Amino acid sequence: MKKIVSIAAVLTAFGAFADEGQWQPHQIKKLQHEFDRIGMKLSAEQVSSLDKYPLNAVVGLGGCSASFVSPNGLVVTNHHCAYGAIANNSTPENNLIKKGFLAKTMSEELSGGPRQRVYITEEVTDVTDKVVADLGELTGKARFDAIANKRKALVKACETSDDYRCSVRSFHHGMEYFLLKQLMIKDVRLVYAPPDSLGNFGGDIDNFEYPRHVADFTFIRAYVDKDGKSANYSKDNVPFKPKSYLTVNGNGVKKGDGVILAGYPGSTSRYKLASEIDFAGSWSYPAQVAMYNKTLDTIALATKGKPALDVKYSSTVKSINNRMKKRMGLMDGFKATDIHGIKLKQEQDLLNWIAKDNSRAQYSLTHGELSALIEKNQASAKQGFYANYAASSSLLSAASRLYRLAIESEKPDSERESGYQARDINRIKSGLKRLKTRFDAGVDQQLWQTYISEYLSQGDSVRVAAFDKALGLTSDMTDTQINDVLAKFYAGSQLADYDTRLNWVGKSVQDFQQSDDAFIKLAVALYDSNMKREAQRKEMAGQLAQVRPEYMKAIIAFNRSLGKPVYPDANGTLRVTFGTVDGYPAADGVYKTPFTSLEGLAAKATGVFPFDAPAPLIKAINDRDYGNYAQKYVEKQFPSKWHCKLFGCHEKILNEFNSVPVNFLSSADTTGGNSGSPVMNARGELVGLNFDSTYESITKDWYFNQRITRAIHVDVRYMLWLMEHYGADNLIEEMKIVK
Amino acid sequence: MKKIVSIAAVLTAFGAFADEGQWQPHQIKKLQHEFDRIGMKLSAEQVSSLDKYPLNAVVGLGGCSASFVSPNGLVVTNHHCAYGAIANNSTPENNLIKKGFLAKTMSEELSGGPRQRVYITEEVTDVTDKVVADLGELTGKARFDAIANKRKALVKACETSDDYRCSVRSFHHGMEYFLLKQLMIKDVRLVYAPPDSLGNFGGDIDNFEYPRHVADFTFIRAYVDKDGKSANYSKDNVPFKPKSYLTVNGNGVKKGDGVILAGYPGSTSRYKLASEIDFAGSWSYPAQVAMYNKTLDTIALATKGKPALDVKYSSTVKSINNRMKKRMGLMDGFKATDIHGIKLKQEQDLLNWIAKDNSRAQYSLTHGELSALIEKNQASAKQGFYANYAASSSLLSAASRLYRLAIESEKPDSERESGYQARDINRIKSGLKRLKTRFDAGVDQQLWQTYISEYLSQGDSVRVAAFDKALGLTSDMTDTQINDVLAKFYAGSQLADYDTRLNWVGKSVQDFQQSDDAFIKLAVALYDSNMKREAQRKEMAGQLAQVRPEYMKAIIAFNRSLGKPVYPDANGTLRVTFGTVDGYPAADGVYKTPFTSLEGLAAKATGVFPFDAPAPLIKAINDRDYGNYAQKYVEKQFPSKWHCKLFGCHEKILNEFNSVPVNFLSSADTTGGNSGSPVMNARGELVGLNFDSTYESITKDWYFNQRITRAIHVDVRYMLWLMEHYGADNLIEEMKIVK
Repeated sequence: MKKIVSIAAVLTAFGAFADEGQWQPHQIKKLQHEFDRIGMKLSAEQVSSLDKYPLNAVVGLGGCSASFVSPNGLVVTNHHCAYGAIANNSTPENNLIKKGFLAKTMSEELSGGPRQRVYITEEVTDVTDKVVADLGELTGKARFDAIANKRKALVKACETSDDYRCSVRSFHHGMEYFLLKQLMIKDVRLVYAPPDSLGNFGGDIDNFEYPRHVADFTFIRAYVDKDGKSANYSKDNVPFKPKSYLTVNGNGVKKGDGVILAGYPGSTSRYKLASEIDFAGSWSYPAQVAMYNKTLDTIALATKGKPALDVKYSSTVKSINNRMKKRMGLMDGFKATDIHGIKLKQEQDLLNWIAKDNSRAQYSLTHGELSALIEKNQASAKQGFYANYAASSSLLSAASRLYRLAIESEKPDSERESGYQARDINRIKSGLKRLKTRFDAGVDQQLWQTYISEYLSQGDSVRVAAFDKALGLTSDMTDTQINDVLAKFYAGSQLADYDTRLNWVGKSVQDFQQSDDAFIKLAVALYDSNMKREAQRKEMAGQLAQVRPEYMKAIIAFNRSLGKPVYPDANGTLRVTFGTVDGYPAADGVYKTPFTSLEGLAAKATGVFPFDAPAPLIKAINDRDYGNYAQKYVEKQFPSKWHCKLFGCHEKILNEFNSVPVNFLSSADTTGGNSGSPVMNARGELVGLNFDSTYESITKDWYFNQRITRAIHVDVRYMLWLMEHYGADNLIEEMKIVK
Repeated sequence: MKKIVSIAAVLTAFGAFADEGQWQPHQIKKLQHEFDRIGMKLSAEQVSSLDKYPLNAVVGLGGCSASFVSPNGLVVTNHHCAYGAIANNSTPENNLIKKGFLAKTMSEELSGGPRQRVYITEEVTDVTDKVVADLGELTGKARFDAIANKRKALVKACETSDDYRCSVRSFHHGMEYFLLKQLMIKDVRLVYAPPDSLGNFGGDIDNFEYPRHVADFTFIRAYVDKDGKSANYSKDNVPFKPKSYLTVNGNGVKKGDGVILAGYPGSTSRYKLASEIDFAGSWSYPAQVAMYNKTLDTIALATKGKPALDVKYSSTVKSINNRMKKRMGLMDGFKATDIHGIKLKQEQDLLNWIAKDNSRAQYSLTHGELSALIEKNQASAKQGFYANYAASSSLLSAASRLYRLAIESEKPDSERESGYQARDINRIKSGLKRLKTRFDAGVDQQLWQTYISEYLSQGDSVRVAAFDKALGLTSDMTDTQINDVLAKFYAGSQLADYDTRLNWVGKSVQDFQQSDDAFIKLAVALYDSNMKREAQRKEMAGQLAQVRPEYMKAIIAFNRSLGKPVYPDANGTLRVTFGTVDGYPAADGVYKTPFTSLEGLAAKATGVFPFDAPAPLIKAINDRDYGNYAQKYVEKQFPSKWHCKLFGCHEKILNEFNSVPVNFLSSADTTGGNSGSPVMNARGELVGLNFDSTYESITKDWYFNQRITRAIHVDVRYMLWLMEHYGADNLIEEMKIVK
C-alpha cells in the first residue's frame, strides 16, 4: 500500500535535495558544494582520484563491489557476493553456508574457487575519439558493427596478459567511451563468513524490505604470486598488498550524517523517454510477470513430489521470485508515484528550452527521431518477447550457442562476435557445465511447451515463420500436440548429457551440419532466421547508437544551462555516490526510521528458517551484551526559533535508541552492482556495507525520488559486534579500527 | 514483529508523560495541571460536571458511546455501533448496509429497531455505604449474596418506570459502589450511514490495525413522545431535545494538539497482581487461542460446501476471529514489552512502601491473602475452562437457562438471581430468538463433540463427575462414540425449534422435570452440579470481594503518598480521558505517523472487498477535490537551541501532509465501550470519533504504555467531506460547525 505522491510534491522535494547521482570519479571534484552540504571532511578533489584514498581501496568482484580493509589484501563484501566461495567449500557433512566460517590464521583460509575474482581498476582512458572516429555516414547495422569492432580491438590491445580484463564501456548511451583496464586477482580465499541464518537472515521474505536485520557481510582475501603478480590458486601465493585500504570507524554514523559510497553499479535508465517508462509499466512488466507466473506454475507442477527436481530448480525459482518481486515493486512504485508524468514534464521542460533558441533546432529533430525509433523498437520488442520465450528450451539454447561458436571460430578472433572470442571460451564452458545441476529434461520440456503455447496464443503478429516451420508448429495445435512435437527433440538428442555438450565445443561447422542430434539439427535449421533477427536488432541498435548520444547532448546542454552537471547512467564502472543517513515515509501513516537494532532482530527471530538466528546470539541480545558497539541517542524535536522566543524551547522526544545498530538507511544513489560497496563517513572511514534497497526504492533505476529512495546498509558496529561474538579477534586485530 | 522495549525504557517514558487514566468525571477537577499541560481551554472543573458542556452531550448506547450534535436529538456514533439499526432496515433487495443510507428529511428516518437504544446518565449516586454496610463478618458466598441482594434492591428502587435503566457499579473492585440512573430512549432512528465499503473499509483485515482508512461513523436520532418522555417507536414521536449538544470544529486537530474523550469504557485490569498477568499470558490466552482454533476448524469442516450454513455461522466466525486477534495482540504485546516485569516491579515498590511503616502492616497481610486467593482461583479457572466448553451446546445452554428461569421465577422478584428477574425476561427472549439465525443442529453437534473430546483429553483434574455421569462419558471414548452419545440429544429434542424454545419461557419447574425433551432432561439432571459449581464461584468471588478492596486501598494510599490520584478500572460507566494527537514507534525501524490521508485510502482501494471503496469517491480523491477539509502542514525539525546559536537554525522537513485527514491517532486512554466516543479539542468541540486501538495497544487493558498506546479516531474533516460528497447537506446544516 503505497502513498500516492503528487508530481508537485515530488518535484518540490527534488529541488530541495540533491543526493541523486552515480558520479564518475572525475566528476566528483566539481561537487565540493555537495560535499560541504553533507558535511564531508574529505575534499571532493581527493575522492575524485582513482589513485588516492579512499577510491584506491575500492574494488569490483564482477557484479558486486568490495573494498580492501587491511594492508594484507583483506577484502570485505556482502555475504551474498561471496556466496559462491562459501558454497564451493561446503559439503553436506561440513556445510559452511549453514555453519559459517572463520579462518583464525591465513593458513586456514579456503580457496574461493575459479569464479571468485577481485578486479582492481588500474586505468580508465577516454577512448571516445577512437571509437566514434571515422564512423562517418555509417548507419544502422553497419554503424553498430563498426563500433563493436573498434571496441573489440581496443580490448584486445589492452589485455596484455591473462592477469588483466579490459572493457570499453559506453557512457551516456554512446556519447562517450572509456577503456577500463582491471587487474584480475584469481586467487581469492574465504576468510570469515557468518552463518546463513545471520548472513541471509530473513531470506527471500525480507528481500527488498526494510526494516531489515541481516549480517550481509563476508571477508575474503586477495592472493598473488611471490612476485606480486596475479596467479591462479597456489599454496605458495602470498597476500596481495593493496595500494591502500579503508580505515574502519567503530563508532559508525548517526542519523543525519553524510556518507559516501563507491562501487560498480550495473545499469540504470535515468535518461529514457517518458514513452519508454510508459511501455515498461503498461506492457513489459505485466508481460514479464505473467510469464514468470507461468514459469513458476509449470515448475511447481513438474517438480511436485520429486524432491530431487525441486533441488535442481530451486535456484531458478529463487531467481524468478527475485525478478518477480522487483517487477512488482516497479509496478507498485509506478502506481505510488507518477514517474511517467514526472518524466513527461522533464521532457517538456527540455523541449521548451530547445524551442527557445533556433540554434537548438537540431535537438528538436533528435527528440522526434528518437521517439519514432523507440516506437519501432517497442513494436519489435513485443514481437520478440514471445518468440524468444518460444526458443527457450535449455537444450536448444545450448545447441544454438555451440553452433554459433563453431561458426564464429572460423573467423579470425578479432572479427568474431563478442562473447564468442577466445577470451570467452571458459565462460561458455562454465555455462554448459552449470546446466548439469540445474536442468532436468522433463521439466525443461514442460517449460518449453508452456512457452510455445503462450507464443502460439499470441496470434500472427509475434510468429516467426522459420521457427514455426522448423518445429512444425501451427496455430491450432493443442497442448498435447505441441508436447508430442517437443518430446521428439528430447528423445532424439544427447545434449542433456554434460560430456556430450562439452564435446561440441571446438567442433567444426560441418560437424554440426552433419549431426543427427535433434537439437543440433534444430539449431542449424534456425540459424539463418536467428541471424536475420539479430541483424534487425543490430540495425535498430545502430540507429539508436546514432540518435541517443545526440539526445544525451541535448539533455547535457540543457542541464549545463541550469548549472547542473549530468552523471551518466550506470554501466558497471566505478562510481561515487553520496547522501545522508535518513529514514523515509514508506506509506500513508508509516515512517521508516534509519536504524534497526539487535532487539528488532531478536523480535523477528522465530527459530524457523529464514528467521533462525542462533540461540547464543539471541541470548547475548537479551542480556544486552552490547560490548563497545551500542549507539545511544534520544532524538528530540525543538519548536521553531520563534516558538522558542515566545514560549520557550520545550523539547519533545521523537525517538530513542539504545542498542547495537544492525542495518541502516541512507539516501545514497545505488543500484544492482553496488552490493558490497563500502559506505564511508565524512573522513572516508568504513561505517557499513551497502547490500540492498527498500521496496519503495525499486523504481530508482528510472527515477531517483529523494523523498523515498533509500539504500540499506549493514552497520559496521553490528559486523564488529558479531565478529567479537564469533571469536574473529584476529580480523579485528588486522583491520585499522578507529573510534 | 514488535520491538522489545526494556523495562527501564518504559518506566522512564512513563515518568515523562501522564495521559494514562480513565477518570470518573468528579476526579477531573483535580487534574487542572494535566489540562494545562495538553493545552485545554475548557477548565477541568467544567469537564468534571455531568450537567455541563460537554459531558451533558455524551451518551451511552449500551456497549458503545455517542454524543448529541444538534438541538434536535441528532446523535453521532460509530458505524459499527449502529450496525444493528442499519441491518434491521436492510433486505436483499434494498441492502442499506451495502448502499449506505441518507434521510434528507426527518420523515425519511428509519426506526433502528428494538435493540437500538440511547442511554443518558441522569444521576450518579455514591451508594458504597448502602452496599457495604452491615456486611459485618460475612465471608465467601454469604458475603457475595448479601452484596448482590443490596445491589438488586437499589436497582429496583431506582427503576421507577420502564424509561429508566439503573445499575449499581462496583468501583475499585468493590471498594466503592455507585448507583447509575439512565434515561433509556427507545425510539432511535437511522439518519445517515455511509456504505459498508467505507464505514467498514478494510474490514477484518484492518481490524486493530493502523494505518487505517475507515469512515466508522453513523448518525442516529433520539425520539420521545410529545410530552418529552421515553416511548416506544411511534410516528407521532418527536425529536428529543438534549440538555446540550457538541459543537463541531471543521478544522479538526493537528499533531501535538491536546484532546479529551468521554464515553463508557467497559473493562480494564490495571490493578491486577503480576501473577494474574503471568497466568493470562502463559495459560489463559494460549488455551483460549487453541480453543478458538479448534472451533474455527470445526465450523469450517461442518459448513464446507454449504453456503446457507456459512451465512448462519459467519457472525460467530467473525466474532471468534476478532477475539483471536485480540488474544494474539495480547500475547505479542507481552512478548514486546515485559508487562509482567513492570507490574512485578510496581508491586515490589508497593510492598517496599508498606514495609517502611508498621501502621501499614495490614496491607502486607492483604497482599498475601490476595495472592493466595488468586492462586486458588487460577487453579479452578483451569478446571472450569474445559468443563464450561464441554457444556457448550447451544441447545443445552438454552435449556439450562430456561430451567434456571423457571426455578428463579418461583421466588419473589427481588430474591431472584440477577439476570433472571422480571426486568431480564425480554433480554432472555431475544437471546433465544437470536439462535434462530445463528444456529444449525448439525454444526452445533460437531462443535459440542469437539469441546467434549478436548475436555476428555485433559485428564481427570478438569472432569465434573455429575456431567460425565449425565452424558455417560468415559475417558476412553472415541470421537465416534462421543458423537453417538450427542446425536441422541439432538434427535430427542425439539429445542432447535424457535417456537418450542420460546414456549418454555414461563413454564413451571414441574413442567421441566416431567419433560421428555432430551436437552431439558439433561439441563434438569445437571442443575444441582451446576449450582454447586456456581456456589463455589460465588464463594471465591465473595472472598475476593473482601480482599480486593483492601488491596485497592493499599494501592490508593501508596499513590496518595506520591501525590497521585488513582482512577478506577473501567466498568461501563462514564469516564473522561485525555491525551495528545501523536504517532508512535510501532516496531524496530517503523514509526507510525498520526494522520492518514485520502490518498492512502485510494492507494489501498483495490475494488475488491473489503477494500472496495466506491469509484466516484476514488475519482474525487484523484481529482484532489478536498473541499474545505484539507489539512496542510510541513513538519519541520529544528536543531537545538545551542545548535541554533552556534550554527544557525537550519530546519529539516520531517513530514509533509496536504490532504483530507481520514483517521488519526491520539494517546487518550480508551478501551472497548469507548467506540463512538466523541474526541474533542481544547474547547470541547467535536473533532473526531474514537473507534479502535492499534494492535500494539491491545495490552493496554493491563498496562498503559505511553510510548506506544494509541487510540484510532475518525477525523471529523473526513466525516464532513464524505457527507458533502453524499449530499448530506441537511445534516451539515443541522449541526453547529465552527472553523
